[in-house]
Amino acid sequence: MIRPRSISGMRELLPAEQITFNHYRDIVRKHFELTGALPLRTSAFELREVIAAKEEVNNSNIEKQIYGVHRLAASNNETDFALRFDLTIPMARFVAQHASKLIFPFRRYQIQPVWRGERAQSGRYREFIQCDIDIIGDQTLNLINDAELPIIIDSIFKDMNIGPFQIRMSNRKLLGGLLLNTGIPASSIANALRLIDKIEKVGQDEIRKQFFQKYKLKDKQVDLIIAYTSLRGPADEVIDKLLTLVAQSHKTNETYMIGIKELTTVSKIVYSLGLTPNSFILDLSVARGLSYYTGTVYETTLTNHPTIGSICSGGRYDNLANLYSNRKLPGVGMSIGLTRLIIHLMDQGLLQQEKPNIAPVLIIVFNPSHLGRYLSIARTLRQAGIATEIATEHAKVSQQFKYADRKGFRLAIIAGEKEFISGIYQVKDMTTRSQILVNNAKLVETIRKILAY
Amino acid sequence: MIRPRSISGMRELLPAEQITFNHYRDIVRKHFELTGALPLRTSAFELREVIAAKEEVNNSNIEKQIYGVHRLAASNNETDFALRFDLTIPMARFVAQHASKLIFPFRRYQIQPVWRGERAQSGRYREFIQCDIDIIGDQTLNLINDAELPIIIDSIFKDMNIGPFQIRMSNRKLLGGLLLNTGIPASSIANALRLIDKIEKVGQDEIRKQFFQKYKLKDKQVDLIIAYTSLRGPADEVIDKLLTLVAQSHKTNETYMIGIKELTTVSKIVYSLGLTPNSFILDLSVARGLSYYTGTVYETTLTNHPTIGSICSGGRYDNLANLYSNRKLPGVGMSIGLTRLIIHLMDQGLLQQEKPNIAPVLIIVFNPSHLGRYLSIARTLRQAGIATEIATEHAKVSQQFKYADRKGFRLAIIAGEKEFISGIYQVKDMTTRSQILVNNAKLVETIRKILAY
Repeated sequence: MIRPRSISGMRELLPAEQITFNHYRDIVRKHFELTGALPLRTSAFELREVIAAKEEVNNSNIEKQIYGVHRLAASNNETDFALRFDLTIPMARFVAQHASKLIFPFRRYQIQPVWRGERAQSGRYREFIQCDIDIIGDQTLNLINDAELPIIIDSIFKDMNIGPFQIRMSNRKLLGGLLLNTGIPASSIANALRLIDKIEKVGQDEIRKQFFQKYKLKDKQVDLIIAYTSLRGPADEVIDKLLTLVAQSHKTNETYMIGIKELTTVSKIVYSLGLTPNSFILDLSVARGLSYYTGTVYETTLTNHPTIGSICSGGRYDNLANLYSNRKLPGVGMSIGLTRLIIHLMDQGLLQQEKPNIAPVLIIVFNPSHLGRYLSIARTLRQAGIATEIATEHAKVSQQFKYADRKGFRLAIIAGEKEFISGIYQVKDMTTRSQILVNNAKLVETIRKILAY
Repeated sequence: MIRPRSISGMRELLPAEQITFNHYRDIVRKHFELTGALPLRTSAFELREVIAAKEEVNNSNIEKQIYGVHRLAASNNETDFALRFDLTIPMARFVAQHASKLIFPFRRYQIQPVWRGERAQSGRYREFIQCDIDIIGDQTLNLINDAELPIIIDSIFKDMNIGPFQIRMSNRKLLGGLLLNTGIPASSIANALRLIDKIEKVGQDEIRKQFFQKYKLKDKQVDLIIAYTSLRGPADEVIDKLLTLVAQSHKTNETYMIGIKELTTVSKIVYSLGLTPNSFILDLSVARGLSYYTGTVYETTLTNHPTIGSICSGGRYDNLANLYSNRKLPGVGMSIGLTRLIIHLMDQGLLQQEKPNIAPVLIIVFNPSHLGRYLSIARTLRQAGIATEIATEHAKVSQQFKYADRKGFRLAIIAGEKEFISGIYQVKDMTTRSQILVNNAKLVETIRKILAY
């Protein structure tokens, strides 16, 4: 006998938990579809050359986490295939591959698991479900799409009703421009931005030290970077301070000014649509670790659960598809790490759990010689769209009612010899324990009314 | 630059195809949920020892098709993990693992991809989506569940509306009993059944030859097997002939008689629920290749597409969980190979394809300086549950209308300076080309009416 075990870092859910998880996944999907996004499913496997194409993959922790696959029966373990570790690369590959058959702007969503060979530890998963939405333009992509994403993020987390959250936005052109101004060479900007991305984790002092050591910056320059990345708050305030900093530094460049303009335009639209600084602010310490972002970047945190980290991140990438295509296909998108978010809240008991059931009606097997008849009642209800089960496995009626309670059925239908002759069944409300008599011919109609379908 | 390619045998769908595929997947899910089945998701990885536990895995083609996974960065390619090749083993492992936390009968459905290292050829997939439903009892499981499955299968394929289909049922106790009667040793029954399972593929003559060679049967005995496996038709006819065969053979055993009784009971219930021999027959050549089946077995074929083979198979397995648990957990279930079915029909042009769109409403950007306002209209509609896109990417209004046509929007909303002042928008029906004026305040209501929500 083999001991049945699942794999650490690959969390599997019990039925009631899975129903809860699916509830939140369906909220995400609903909001994605409301924006006109189309469903995409890519294969779990990617060619190794495709998955390793991004330069930052080769220089990051992610490279070490990629899983390769090989047929166990093959004579050697060499493989050309790897499992996807995110949904952005497969999407970029798919769009480049099928560009001639797609209608642009291509707005797609994708809800699938990804795999990373993380060390097993709390809150880290080796399989987790990501929910991505991206908008890809042909040659150009209007900045309004950058403003649409916070609106979508806001509507999703409001609808989830999991407490206050904050969408924090910045712009990599600004950050990049600022760092260029300090004299850091263009080739090192990606690394310097990755350093800034860690500021919340390692603290200002460490960042300060590293900027001195790695880039030989002067005190004043590091002060400016720190002052800059400390800017956080409502957009108008942050942009005011930003312009003051610009005036003080006596030095600027075009990228930087475009960044300010983008940040201003996007945040203005977002606020004009009713979002307030409660849920949407500028935070110039947001840099994102991945170097393919070229402009707007977002992160989202749950105010009462800072330890989860960012629950939804993304941004604008104007050149990602260049890895696979000569066609210019700029995009903007975001990704929700649904597994980490929902399991954290679930494990803390913060999500209302459904009873482990999906059917409202249980048919009591009062007389086992009539099993066919019970199945026939079930069939009638199911054809009318009412999910129904039959209590086939417990001999005693009292056990069947216990089963109904444990699993959380709303109604039980009771019929025996007498009822089959009269055509009048008993319908019991499992919550109130009250019982009514219902004519066979009115069963569907009555149950629909009780369940308020 | 890396050439963007997907992997052969792992079919990816374009948006319109994916929408069509999801439509059929949702039909399956709906019918699963109507029977009270709970959703289960297991991890893609299983421990190797778990996946290789079934004896038939070790003696079948499947073993050679199992994919192992390993971190590419690891110093050696040794792995303890493998990708699931079906959904039955993960389900059996999960039920054995969590039995104390589940409520029995445990009725679960599972719709996930599985992976097999098949040689790439038409109709064979290395990644494909299976849709499984299983009912697991604690200690016992009522035979009525065996009758419920054909009812579910029937309702799914009727609802799919993909032409006539036939559910073919048999019982392994019958087959096994018959083979035992011929003197084949008990230890070889599983292999002999696998031989019978191939009868449709290789023909009677080949089967006859192999039974002579492998099991040294006499002419009369092989005649009996052939006569038996040729029985096919409405249940009462087949059972009559079966009883005649029994009487002729002057030899029977208990297993065999239980098999006849099960077949009779199950088929009676199925017919009593309105299924006819058009869609449900007995076919005693159905044996199923997997030896864990212990009683009822099913296969389903599309009458007009015999080349696809069985599109839905399953059966009763009383001892599968024994691999992982001392607790007796008998089950019955079935699996739909959705990828093969839908892609076959799709590629033959037999499925009505949706336009590559999910949103009914497109907002025309008449004046780009009002982008925020257009987004605001979109937000109002989306909050009312009406999927809406904004035509942000085409400068000319004529191009925007072309985009609306290509993608298949139902309605276009047109508003400029004048309309924003008056608060009266134009709503254009893209099918009839007719245009109406709608007051801002009545926009949601009017569009709902047009779309018949």
